[in-house]
Amino acid sequence: MTVRIGVVGTGAIGREHIERVSRVISGARVSAVADIDAALAEKAAAEAGGARVADAADIAGSLIAADDVDAVLVSSWHAAHAEHVLAAIAAGKPVLCEKPLATTAEDALRVLAAEEAFGRRLVQVGFMRRYDPGYRELKRVIADGGIGRPLMMHCAHRNRSAPERYTTEMAAQDTGVHEIDAARWLLDDEIVSAQVILPRATERRFPHLRDPQFMLFETAGGVRIDLEVFVNCQYGYDIQCETVGETGLIRLPDPARAEVRAAARVGTEIDQEWGGRFAEAFDVEVQAWVDSVAAGAATGPSAWDGYAATAVAAATVEAQRTGAVVDVDLVERPAFYA
Amino acid sequence: MTVRIGVVGTGAIGREHIERVSRVISGARVSAVADIDAALAEKAAAEAGGARVADAADIAGSLIAADDVDAVLVSSWHAAHAEHVLAAIAAGKPVLCEKPLATTAEDALRVLAAEEAFGRRLVQVGFMRRYDPGYRELKRVIADGGIGRPLMMHCAHRNRSAPERYTTEMAAQDTGVHEIDAARWLLDDEIVSAQVILPRATERRFPHLRDPQFMLFETAGGVRIDLEVFVNCQYGYDIQCETVGETGLIRLPDPARAEVRAAARVGTEIDQEWGGRFAEAFDVEVQAWVDSVAAGAATGPSAWDGYAATAVAAATVEAQRTGAVVDVDLVERPAFYA
Amino acid sequence: MTVRIGVVGTGAIGREHIERVSRVISGARVSAVADIDAALAEKAAAEAGGARVADAADIAGSLIAADDVDAVLVSSWHAAHAEHVLAAIAAGKPVLCEKPLATTAEDALRVLAAEEAFGRRLVQVGFMRRYDPGYRELKRVIADGGIGRPLMMHCAHRNRSAPERYTTEMAAQDTGVHEIDAARWLLDDEIVSAQVILPRATERRFPHLRDPQFMLFETAGGVRIDLEVFVNCQYGYDIQCETVGETGLIRLPDPARAEVRAAARVGTEIDQEWGGRFAEAFDVEVQAWVDSVAAGAATGPSAWDGYAATAVAAATVEAQRTGAVVDVDLVERPAFYA
Amino acid sequence: MTVRIGVVGTGAIGREHIERVSRVISGARVSAVADIDAALAEKAAAEAGGARVADAADIAGSLIAADDVDAVLVSSWHAAHAEHVLAAIAAGKPVLCEKPLATTAEDALRVLAAEEAFGRRLVQVGFMRRYDPGYRELKRVIADGGIGRPLMMHCAHRNRSAPERYTTEMAAQDTGVHEIDAARWLLDDEIVSAQVILPRATERRFPHLRDPQFMLFETAGGVRIDLEVFVNCQYGYDIQCETVGETGLIRLPDPARAEVRAAARVGTEIDQEWGGRFAEAFDVEVQAWVDSVAAGAATGPSAWDGYAATAVAAATVEAQRTGAVVDVDLVERPAFYA
Repeated sequence: MTVRIGVVGTGAIGREHIERVSRVISGARVSAVADIDAALAEKAAAEAGGARVADAADIAGSLIAADDVDAVLVSSWHAAHAEHVLAAIAAGKPVLCEKPLATTAEDALRVLAAEEAFGRRLVQVGFMRRYDPGYRELKRVIADGGIGRPLMMHCAHRNRSAPERYTTEMAAQDTGVHEIDAARWLLDDEIVSAQVILPRATERRFPHLRDPQFMLFETAGGVRIDLEVFVNCQYGYDIQCETVGETGLIRLPDPARAEVRAAARVGTEIDQEWGGRFAEAFDVEVQAWVDSVAAGAATGPSAWDGYAATAVAAATVEAQRTGAVVDVDLVERPAFYA
Repeated sequence: MTVRIGVVGTGAIGREHIERVSRVISGARVSAVADIDAALAEKAAAEAGGARVADAADIAGSLIAADDVDAVLVSSWHAAHAEHVLAAIAAGKPVLCEKPLATTAEDALRVLAAEEAFGRRLVQVGFMRRYDPGYRELKRVIADGGIGRPLMMHCAHRNRSAPERYTTEMAAQDTGVHEIDAARWLLDDEIVSAQVILPRATERRFPHLRDPQFMLFETAGGVRIDLEVFVNCQYGYDIQCETVGETGLIRLPDPARAEVRAAARVGTEIDQEWGGRFAEAFDVEVQAWVDSVAAGAATGPSAWDGYAATAVAAATVEAQRTGAVVDVDLVERPAFYA
Repeated sequence: MTVRIGVVGTGAIGREHIERVSRVISGARVSAVADIDAALAEKAAAEAGGARVADAADIAGSLIAADDVDAVLVSSWHAAHAEHVLAAIAAGKPVLCEKPLATTAEDALRVLAAEEAFGRRLVQVGFMRRYDPGYRELKRVIADGGIGRPLMMHCAHRNRSAPERYTTEMAAQDTGVHEIDAARWLLDDEIVSAQVILPRATERRFPHLRDPQFMLFETAGGVRIDLEVFVNCQYGYDIQCETVGETGLIRLPDPARAEVRAAARVGTEIDQEWGGRFAEAFDVEVQAWVDSVAAGAATGPSAWDGYAATAVAAATVEAQRTGAVVDVDLVERPAFYA
Repeated sequence: MTVRIGVVGTGAIGREHIERVSRVISGARVSAVADIDAALAEKAAAEAGGARVADAADIAGSLIAADDVDAVLVSSWHAAHAEHVLAAIAAGKPVLCEKPLATTAEDALRVLAAEEAFGRRLVQVGFMRRYDPGYRELKRVIADGGIGRPLMMHCAHRNRSAPERYTTEMAAQDTGVHEIDAARWLLDDEIVSAQVILPRATERRFPHLRDPQFMLFETAGGVRIDLEVFVNCQYGYDIQCETVGETGLIRLPDPARAEVRAAARVGTEIDQEWGGRFAEAFDVEVQAWVDSVAAGAATGPSAWDGYAATAVAAATVEAQRTGAVVDVDLVERPAFYA
């Protein structure tokens, strides 16, 4: 069986997913695409090896509910994610939604309610780090007790540079949200409060942006997480994650790169873009999703995870504004997501 | 287009390839399998999702030449490799042959002659290291002049333990042959002589085996290569490769593994088996082969590379026996393989 | 010229210094010792190769002011440090005072006033990290602009285990104070506020102790410093320091230890005690002090540094108690210490 | 007691030792110096803080046998080492001789005979690596069985560049001799044969010099040692040593240097000169010698070690010339040196 995938949104990430499904993933093909930019959609359809271009004015009907679509991949603009996911649930079709699941906690809760009403999981949220070999090793070692009970996490998320449209809020919503999900997953614990400290800002970038930021989170179990977000660090794309437990600590590996000794230095190259760093994770993520669609059973980050991440990011944005410790008020976790 | 693959030989490596084609590779499926062990073939066919079991007594006719086979993957026992590759060339079909291409230089030369007579490349030899990200980085940096003109290579190939059937000769033919090909490829140079030094043997394994061995090679360009082969090193699977040039050196990275600090030590795990170390390389290798079949143009390690590796390994075996420096007498490289 | 040193306090650190002066340092010897524990003093005097035991009831007269003492090394109990340093200033003699210079900011200010009144620097405070090769490399690279203008520091101070008498306050006063001084020195900036976050406590140690702690500091220039203090981390003595600047970051090296590959792991040993980690730094510190005494010009961490560290540690203790951000109110820095 | 040292030879290394004794070493001072270059000797004497300049025409009488000299440090030109050591033995005085002990095996044997006739050890040879913390960790771990019985060693000795007067022979006599001694010491075994392989030469340096060289040694116990000597590697001073045993391997650490992430690379600086790399080892070596003089009992590398290193280096030079495996014919080790 070949899973026929309809792709909503053919911007940069959408086209990467189309390329991935067409050339890397086993057991799937892109059957239909939709985008409000018709020319972009046509181009993406051609790259997919002849997919159908669906009507952008009726994505729910012409693509999500269509007979030639077995499963939906949502890579539209963030504000439309929840709507497209709800349409997929309404059509009873599995859906992989790029993060965020929704831009507000309210929208995310509507997804939870719809999925629970449908009666079984259909939604996987695109937190690809859960499929990165390094993060998976952290998860395994922590779960096996290799560092004892976790007490702290120290994280950093650095990008070489951010575009002018990048805002102070996006440091939480778009950037930090990856660590928010990773921490919840690694610790198997919920984040209950957020605080943001603002070091002096780099002068290497736009004045409107507070960069770097230093975020602090607390979990229900009392674990403290700190996260440096620095999106104009100049030197490269660099993701650090360290968990400290009662008997040891574990640190996410840097990518394996060849060591060069030349010109009075020994060292390795650093990735410049995020794509390369997590390319393998994206491949594994989408293959796992396709396999789960074929098997008829959703896996991976759930709508609940998408909701929690959105809620924590919202609290973090409020903490940016107020300077105070902001509580995260999650609804009670439905048994459906236990 | 889905490439339909016929697999000759359903032993351990054959079945790994079948699993890979069925679950990981994009654009291919296994359509037929053959093995002299009929039960094994039946089982592999089922795992491939319903492939046909071909007549093991007539592999050339019932599988290689069959209409439902677009390309052939040879993972039969080593002594039969050349025969199956020749049959694929006779049928005009692309073939991926697990290393070695042949067990004797004479057999390898028959493959070269047949392929040249056919008029275009059909053969890819399974030297998967050329698809490993670490080795590719070495290739790129060396080719870009990052270490200057190469002068020396220092290599090590260590396995945790070898089975009782492993022989002293296999250290060259089955183990060292990977470094022989990798060195030729990285240096873009031919090996012209081999010498073998035998350190005192480990007592941790069977008395019939000389282990470790220390192999020395010279290239036409004067580069000197040394290679420790140690197949009972006890601690894990460990592949080292360092190239020293006129202005610097580059070292193959160890796999990226999480650093743990616990119990008075800081460090990482070491792979115990070769499968995990090169799993990604195998995936990339087979995908590249499938893509090249679909595109109608062979790429990757050629029959010439297979011949050269076989010839160097044979000289190395003679060097084990004699203790002397043994010349490698390659035929002149046909323009066809330029 | 051989510098004749009088040592006040012959506990563990005092005796280490006596051993150091006697067997490692060039150009100095211990001429007199004093301790309220007479037996301890006798033993230390013998180990020093025949030093005089001074009258513990009159340390100022019998040791600090004595003719056979050129310079004073204070390693008495913390509460007496300021008194002994003041006596050295009164006698016009150079003094190396183990940290802390004083246990209260008021006492430290009395030292500043006395030294300024004397008219030239006599006091060096024992912040040995400034003499550690790794920290010195950080200082040099940061000062040379190798990472751009500093924005953040991430630090960790971990001990294998702390004795029962170790208190929550000591995490700031005795442990974190090393990073407080190192940060001030590396950044050439003053700390203006402190905050303490308390993660859930390890269960591996005494219930009276909050361990680990996560301390946050801000400098006058807006640099944000975070410091994990974890004195029962079980796995060893581990000091981490990372400074993030506008164009790069620099990380304190782990000690150089041999890499071992065995038993499925690759890695190195971790120091178990602090003595080994900073042994070289202590040697360099004391040699620098002896050399400065011989040259007649004080160098190294000054009384001002001792005062500032004491004041920041006091604010940190208040922050432990209140959970709030606590300002550090330093007096204006006298021109004398510019 | 202060050990009064007479220094023979005030060239570069001699003056470094004078500086070391004067400013770093505890319990010693330089009392007399001698050099055929009178101006150089005067300058060195002044730097030593007022040492006597002895008569260069009668070094044995005016310096070695003089009453104000307790122990002799030989850093004269290589061809004179044996003569000066013999004079020290004749005077019954402890002597630290820079490597080599002698330039011929015959001269080294004369030293052995003289020392044995004197009746107790007086000679320490300046193989400073035995005092380097990294090498000492290798020695400890190997001796403790941490890697099982040793089977192989892989070494590299790289200098940034060599002066024009550096000859092909010096690669063995002056450079490789350090690894020759280190291997003998680490393995507690004698080297019995040498072979030299000459890779293509770097074009970055003088045509008269064969550089790099690849040396192969065998020990009496069957351990195989390979050593790359590359004295114009361009990128820095880099010493590598790896010992492979039956259950694991151990690798000499690179110096601890701060990791910098900047400009798309992560890495550390590499030493450019040998002085920095082994500065601590030299300090420890000379302090150990001074302490042993004070204690009246010689320690460290003995005259036997000096003889063996000279004999192996001589065999290596012959191996350079002949291309053959050259046996090292040591005399039987006297019980005196057991």
